Amino acid sequence: MTILRAVFLLAVSAPALLAQRARARELGVAPGVFAPGRHNAITDVAGVRVGQVTLTQGDNVRTGVTAILPHAGNLYRDRVPAALHVGNGFGKLLGVTQLRELGELESPILLTCTLCVWKAADAMVEHLLAAPDMQQVRSINVVVGETNDGGLNDIRARPVTADAVRRALTEATDGPVAEGSVGAGTGTVAFGWKGGIGTSSRVLPTRFGGYTIGVLVQSNFGGILQVLGAPVGRELDQYAFRGASNGGADDGDGSIMIVVATDAPLSDRNLERLASRAMLGVSRTGSSASNGSGDYVLAFSTAAEVRRAWDAPRLSTTEIANEQMSALFQAVVEATEEAILNSLFMATTVTGNGRTIEAIPLDRLREVLRRYGVTPP
Amino acid sequence: MTILRAVFLLAVSAPALLAQRARARELGVAPGVFAPGRHNAITDVAGVRVGQVTLTQGDNVRTGVTAILPHAGNLYRDRVPAALHVGNGFGKLLGVTQLRELGELESPILLTCTLCVWKAADAMVEHLLAAPDMQQVRSINVVVGETNDGGLNDIRARPVTADAVRRALTEATDGPVAEGSVGAGTGTVAFGWKGGIGTSSRVLPTRFGGYTIGVLVQSNFGGILQVLGAPVGRELDQYAFRGASNGGADDGDGSIMIVVATDAPLSDRNLERLASRAMLGVSRTGSSASNGSGDYVLAFSTAAEVRRAWDAPRLSTTEIANEQMSALFQAVVEATEEAILNSLFMATTVTGNGRTIEAIPLDRLREVLRRYGVTPP
Amino acid sequence: MTILRAVFLLAVSAPALLAQRARARELGVAPGVFAPGRHNAITDVAGVRVGQVTLTQGDNVRTGVTAILPHAGNLYRDRVPAALHVGNGFGKLLGVTQLRELGELESPILLTCTLCVWKAADAMVEHLLAAPDMQQVRSINVVVGETNDGGLNDIRARPVTADAVRRALTEATDGPVAEGSVGAGTGTVAFGWKGGIGTSSRVLPTRFGGYTIGVLVQSNFGGILQVLGAPVGRELDQYAFRGASNGGADDGDGSIMIVVATDAPLSDRNLERLASRAMLGVSRTGSSASNGSGDYVLAFSTAAEVRRAWDAPRLSTTEIANEQMSALFQAVVEATEEAILNSLFMATTVTGNGRTIEAIPLDRLREVLRRYGVTPP
Amino acid sequence: MTILRAVFLLAVSAPALLAQRARARELGVAPGVFAPGRHNAITDVAGVRVGQVTLTQGDNVRTGVTAILPHAGNLYRDRVPAALHVGNGFGKLLGVTQLRELGELESPILLTCTLCVWKAADAMVEHLLAAPDMQQVRSINVVVGETNDGGLNDIRARPVTADAVRRALTEATDGPVAEGSVGAGTGTVAFGWKGGIGTSSRVLPTRFGGYTIGVLVQSNFGGILQVLGAPVGRELDQYAFRGASNGGADDGDGSIMIVVATDAPLSDRNLERLASRAMLGVSRTGSSASNGSGDYVLAFSTAAEVRRAWDAPRLSTTEIANEQMSALFQAVVEATEEAILNSLFMATTVTGNGRTIEAIPLDRLREVLRRYGVTPP
Repeated sequence: MTILRAVFLLAVSAPALLAQRARARELGVAPGVFAPGRHNAITDVAGVRVGQVTLTQGDNVRTGVTAILPHAGNLYRDRVPAALHVGNGFGKLLGVTQLRELGELESPILLTCTLCVWKAADAMVEHLLAAPDMQQVRSINVVVGETNDGGLNDIRARPVTADAVRRALTEATDGPVAEGSVGAGTGTVAFGWKGGIGTSSRVLPTRFGGYTIGVLVQSNFGGILQVLGAPVGRELDQYAFRGASNGGADDGDGSIMIVVATDAPLSDRNLERLASRAMLGVSRTGSSASNGSGDYVLAFSTAAEVRRAWDAPRLSTTEIANEQMSALFQAVVEATEEAILNSLFMATTVTGNGRTIEAIPLDRLREVLRRYGVTPP
Repeated sequence: MTILRAVFLLAVSAPALLAQRARARELGVAPGVFAPGRHNAITDVAGVRVGQVTLTQGDNVRTGVTAILPHAGNLYRDRVPAALHVGNGFGKLLGVTQLRELGELESPILLTCTLCVWKAADAMVEHLLAAPDMQQVRSINVVVGETNDGGLNDIRARPVTADAVRRALTEATDGPVAEGSVGAGTGTVAFGWKGGIGTSSRVLPTRFGGYTIGVLVQSNFGGILQVLGAPVGRELDQYAFRGASNGGADDGDGSIMIVVATDAPLSDRNLERLASRAMLGVSRTGSSASNGSGDYVLAFSTAAEVRRAWDAPRLSTTEIANEQMSALFQAVVEATEEAILNSLFMATTVTGNGRTIEAIPLDRLREVLRRYGVTPP
Repeated sequence: MTILRAVFLLAVSAPALLAQRARARELGVAPGVFAPGRHNAITDVAGVRVGQVTLTQGDNVRTGVTAILPHAGNLYRDRVPAALHVGNGFGKLLGVTQLRELGELESPILLTCTLCVWKAADAMVEHLLAAPDMQQVRSINVVVGETNDGGLNDIRARPVTADAVRRALTEATDGPVAEGSVGAGTGTVAFGWKGGIGTSSRVLPTRFGGYTIGVLVQSNFGGILQVLGAPVGRELDQYAFRGASNGGADDGDGSIMIVVATDAPLSDRNLERLASRAMLGVSRTGSSASNGSGDYVLAFSTAAEVRRAWDAPRLSTTEIANEQMSALFQAVVEATEEAILNSLFMATTVTGNGRTIEAIPLDRLREVLRRYGVTPP
Repeated sequence: MTILRAVFLLAVSAPALLAQRARARELGVAPGVFAPGRHNAITDVAGVRVGQVTLTQGDNVRTGVTAILPHAGNLYRDRVPAALHVGNGFGKLLGVTQLRELGELESPILLTCTLCVWKAADAMVEHLLAAPDMQQVRSINVVVGETNDGGLNDIRARPVTADAVRRALTEATDGPVAEGSVGAGTGTVAFGWKGGIGTSSRVLPTRFGGYTIGVLVQSNFGGILQVLGAPVGRELDQYAFRGASNGGADDGDGSIMIVVATDAPLSDRNLERLASRAMLGVSRTGSSASNGSGDYVLAFSTAAEVRRAWDAPRLSTTEIANEQMSALFQAVVEATEEAILNSLFMATTVTGNGRTIEAIPLDRLREVLRRYGVTPP
C-alpha cells in the first residue's frame, strides 16, 4: 500500500490510537541546535522520495516495504556517491561491497523484514531491468536492508511480494512521510515498545552552507529509552536490554536501519564519515548497540556537483572540504535522534503472530518529560 | 545435476573435447613447493563436501550452482570460524557483514550467476529452515557469491531454480570435484578462454603442522594468462584486458570467487589473513584485478578445536599462533594458482546466448610450456 | 611526576580549586544501570596500573604523560589481546597497524601531547629494550596516543622528556587514579572548559559474568556539554562547536583518547566491537565527533584465559561468545560517559601559553543538574 | 648522503661489484605489457623527488633514510590525495589513521629502519615546522615507514640522526634514483640475498590516458624468488621461507614498503584500490606475505586536478572514473614487480653486525633466465 493507503488502513484499524500519536517536536522534544526542514523528513532533501507499502494480512503478516529513492531519474545511469557505516554487522543488508568499492549507489534503497531481503532484492532487480533503457544491463547492485519483525510477523513465510516492492518503488513521493507502524516498520519493536519508521531533517544555517540533511530510520532495537536525557525507560519500567539471561541466536535482538540523505556535495569518503555519526544519535536514545543488533547507516548525496553519470570517463566534482564537515556531523546526530523518537511516538499498538506490542503511552511520556525539565512544568 | 550427472552430460555433449582435457598437474604444471592432497581438491579437507548442478537449457541457459559445505552437520547450530577478504568489491556477494561481525559462517556457501544470487539465497533459506531442528529459527545469514556469466547465459532471466539449489545442497559429496564448465562455472570466461570451476589442495609437511588447505574457484576474470611465468596469453595472442576502449558498466568485466577451507585451527582473524593471500595466487596467473572484477575470498576452518556451538556461552578453542601462519599463507597461494589453472584446463568449449567461448587449446599450451622450461623439452 | 607528586604539585599551585573539585558520582551523576568498582577507575581491573607525570615548567609547558600498563609483567613476552576502534582518525596515534594485524598489544600504552608522540615512543622503546630479558629484541611495536594541548602548552617545542616517559612507566601503580589537569591531561580542553584525565569502571552483575570494565580518557574535544541529558553547555552558554567560521587546519580541534580495560576473556574481534561502543558514551556527553577530532579507542583484556605468550606456537583460550557481549557493551558506554564527566569535573583551571582555560564551575553545574531532574531539587 | 655521494661511497667500498650490477631491464627482464618512463623510476612522475642518505659507520651501522617528496612545494599547504593499503600489518608505519581519514598526505614520506621510525619522524617534524610559513602550525601528520635491517645493522642503537633526515629531505632531486644497498635499503635482505631500494615506472598508452605511474620499494622480505616465472630461488637453492622451524617474534621476518606515485588524477578511494594492486606485483616475485612481514603500500596522485589547498573550503576536482582504472592497475603490478627485481639486481654485498649478505649472483641468474626462456638462449 502506498502512504495514503497505509494511513487509511491504520485509520480504519486503530482510529483512536492514531489520533493520539504525535511527533517528537509536537511533544516539545527538539534535539540539538539546528532547525528541521519543512516536513522534518528525509524528503526535505530535494528530489528524495519515499514509498511505503504496509502488508497486514490475517493474524500473522505484519510487515512491509519502505523504498528510498535519491532522485526521480534512473539511478543506474545517474548515480549518487554513497557510503555505508556498519555500527554492528549482525544483519542481512544486501549490496554492500560494491557500494563501498565504487563509492556509489546505483539502485533505490529498500527496507523490509529480515528474511524478506532476498525476495525483495530479486523483485527490485526484475522491476528495474524491465525499464526500456535498461534492456542491455546484465549486472546491477541493489541495496536492501532489514530489521527483524519476527515477533509480530510470520517472518519464516517471507511474506513480501514482488507487487509490494514494485508499488513501493513506483508510488514513492516527496512531501510528508508516514511514520510509525507502516511500511518496513509495520512489525518492528524498539525499547520494548512498538517501533517503526521515523524521519527527521536539519537545515544548516547559511554560514555552515545552508545544506539540508534528512534521516529515515526503521527502528527495531533494544536499550533503555532516554529522551533528551530523561530516563523514560527507567521511569516507565521498560528495560529492553538483552543480556546473558535471555539471549539466543534466533531471537532477532533488534536492529536499526538508518538512511541519511543530503544535498551537501560530499565525496563518498566524507559520506562514510557522516554515516558513522548517525550511530552517535542512536546512542543518545539509550542504545548500546547490543550484540544481536544489525545497525547500519547508508548515506548518499543528491548534489548535482557530485552526481556521476554511469558512462562518464571522468568526474568533475565540487565537494565540501574535510574542514567543513563538522556542522553536518552535528546535524546528522540530531536528525537521527529525532527520527528514532518519531518512529516510537508515531507508532501504534500492533497485534500479530499471537503477540501484542504496545505503543509508548504518550501521556506517561509527557509526565516524565516534564519531571526532567525537557518540557516546561 | 550432481557431479556424476554433470560429467555424464558433458560426456554426451562433448565427448571428444572432454577426453582431451587435463588438470594442471597432468600437464606437468605444479605450482609451489608443497604437495597436494589425495584428490587435489577442496574436499581433501576432511568433512568438506561440494555439490554442483549444471543448468543447460535451450540455446540460452548456461549456468548452474556450486555449493560448498564445511561439514556434514547443521552449520547453523555447529558454526565454523570464517572470514572474507575483498580483493575488489565489484560484485553481489551476499551475507558479508554478519560473517565479518561474528567471525563465523552459519550456512553453506553457494556460488551461482550474478543476477541469480537473490533467488538462490531465498531458496537456500527455504531449504535450511525446513529442517526439523530449524523450526524456531527466524534469522539466518546465508552466503551466496557469483560471477557474471552473462556472455553465454541469459542472465537477465535469472534462470537458477529453487530445485537446483536444493539439489546442490543435498547431493553434495566428498571425493573428486568436477571441474571446468560445470555448476556455477558452466558459463564463465577467464583470460579470454572458457573458465569455470577449479580446485586444488596442499598438505603441509609435518614440521609445519601437517594441515590441509583446499581451494575452490569460480573463474571468470580477465588478464593475460601466465602459467608458472610462461607467457601463455601473449604467445597465444589472447589478451583479455579490459581497458578504456571497451569498458562499460554492464559488460561484467569478469570476477573470481574463491573459497578456502582448512583443517588448521585458525581464529577468524587469521582466516582473514589467510584469505587475503589467495589474491596473490590470482596474481600469479596474470590478473591485475581489473575495475569491474568482483574478487572475493571466503575462508573457513573445519577444525574441531575452533568449532562454535551456536548456543555456547563460552568458546574454548586452541588455535595456531600468528607466528605459525606463514606456511599456510604459502600453501593458499599455491593452491589458488593451481585451482585457477585447473578451471581453465578442464573447461570445455561452450556455446550459448549466440556466442561460443573456446576452451584453451591444450596442445598449443603444451608447446608454450615446453618452450619456457615449465615442462621438459 | 608520579600520581602522588602530581597531586602534591596541584595542591600547592591551586589548593582552593582542588578542594572544590568532585567526581561525577559525588555530584549525584551516575550514568547507566551498572555499578562501578572499588575505585571507579580503570585500575579496578585487576593488574592494570597507571602512571602519570605532569610537566609544568615556566609559562608555557603544560603537558605530561599518562601510561597505562595492562599487567605487571613484561608485555612483550606476555601479550594481551587488544583492538582499536577509530571514531575519527584525525590524530597521530602510533602503533596501530601491527596491533590490528596481530590482535595484540606488546607494550604499555602512553598518552601525551600531539607533537610529543614520536619522542615519547622512542623513549619508551629505549626503556623497554634496556630490560635484561629484552636484549635480543630487534622489533617492538609501541602504542602512543595523544591529544592536542597546543592551546595551553608550547607544543611545538615537544617538551616531553625521556625521563618523564620512564617515570610514568616505572612509577605506575594500581589504586586510585589522579584525574583532571594531570599527566597527559595537563593542558587539554573539553567542551570549552578545562579537560584532562578521567576514569571510571563498571562491575557486571553475576548473571552477566561479574566482569569488570575500566575506562580512562584524555579529554580534549568539543561539542555542547550534556550531563545525563541536562543541557549544561546551553545553560552555561558554552558552545565548543567548531564549524565553518573558526575552523582551521592547525587549530587542533580537539580529540579524545580512550583506553578500555577488562578482565572479561575476549577475543581481539570482540574487543574491537567493545571499543566501538565507547564512542556511544562520548556521544552522550554532547560530542558529534567533529572533523578535526582524533577519537580513538584502545581496548584490551587482562584475562588469563586469553593471555598470549610471545613464543607459544598455539593458543588455548576460553573466551566469551558473541551472544554474551551485550552487557559489556552497555558497561563500556556507561563508564566512558562517566570517565569524561570525571575528567571535566576534576579538572582545575590552567593558565599557560598566554591563555587561561577555566574549570567548569561546579556550583553552576549543580544548579543545572537540579533544574533538569538529574539530582533531587 | 645524497644520491651522488651514496654512489660514490659504494664505488669506494665495493667498486668491482658495483660495476657488475644491472637493472632488470638490462638483463632482458621486462615485466608486463606497458613501457617504462624515461628513467624507469618513480621520478618519472613529474615533480616527484627522492632523497637518500646512506649511513655506514664502523662495523655495525648499515642503515639510512630514503625520502619521497610528491612535489617541490609545501605539502602541508598543498596536499595530495593519498591512500594506504596494508598487505600485512606487522610493521611500525607511522601516520596512517589521519592519512586514511582525510584521504591526503601532508608531509613527505620517509623510509628508514624499524626502530628508527620515531626518531626520524620527530626529526622530520622539527625540520618541517621550522619553515617560515609553518610557524603557526601545531599539528602535523608525518608518514614514516620502515623495514627491519637488524641483521646487518645495529638497529637497537636506532642510529638514524636528525641530520640524515634533514639531508634526505633537502637534497632530494628528480632524475635517476640510486638503487640497491643505499638509503633505507642499506641493510635490508630479500629472498635471502641483499635487498634494498628499487624503482620502476610505466607510461600508459594514449588510449588509456597517457598517465605515468612510478613505484619505489624498500625490499626486505622473504619467499622463493621468481623472475617472470623462472624459479630462480629454487634453481639457486635459496629458500628464504620462514616457517615454524625458525620463526621467532624478534627475527624481523622481512617486510616491504612500497610507494606508488602517479600523475593520473585519482580520488583517495581509487588510490587505495591502486595501492592494493601493488601486492599483486609483490606476489609475482615469489612472496606469500609471511606472518612477520610489514607489507604496506602508500599511493598518492600529483595531478593538479586533484590537488588540495589546505585551507580551501571546497575542492573542485576532475578525476578518472572507476571504469578507467584497469590500465592503471595493470601498470602498478608491472612496475612493482620490476622495482623489486631492480632492488635485488642492483644491491651489492654488505657486511655488518658480524654478518655478510651476498648480492644475488647475476651470472648465475642470467643462466637461469636463459634456461627458462625469459631471455633468448
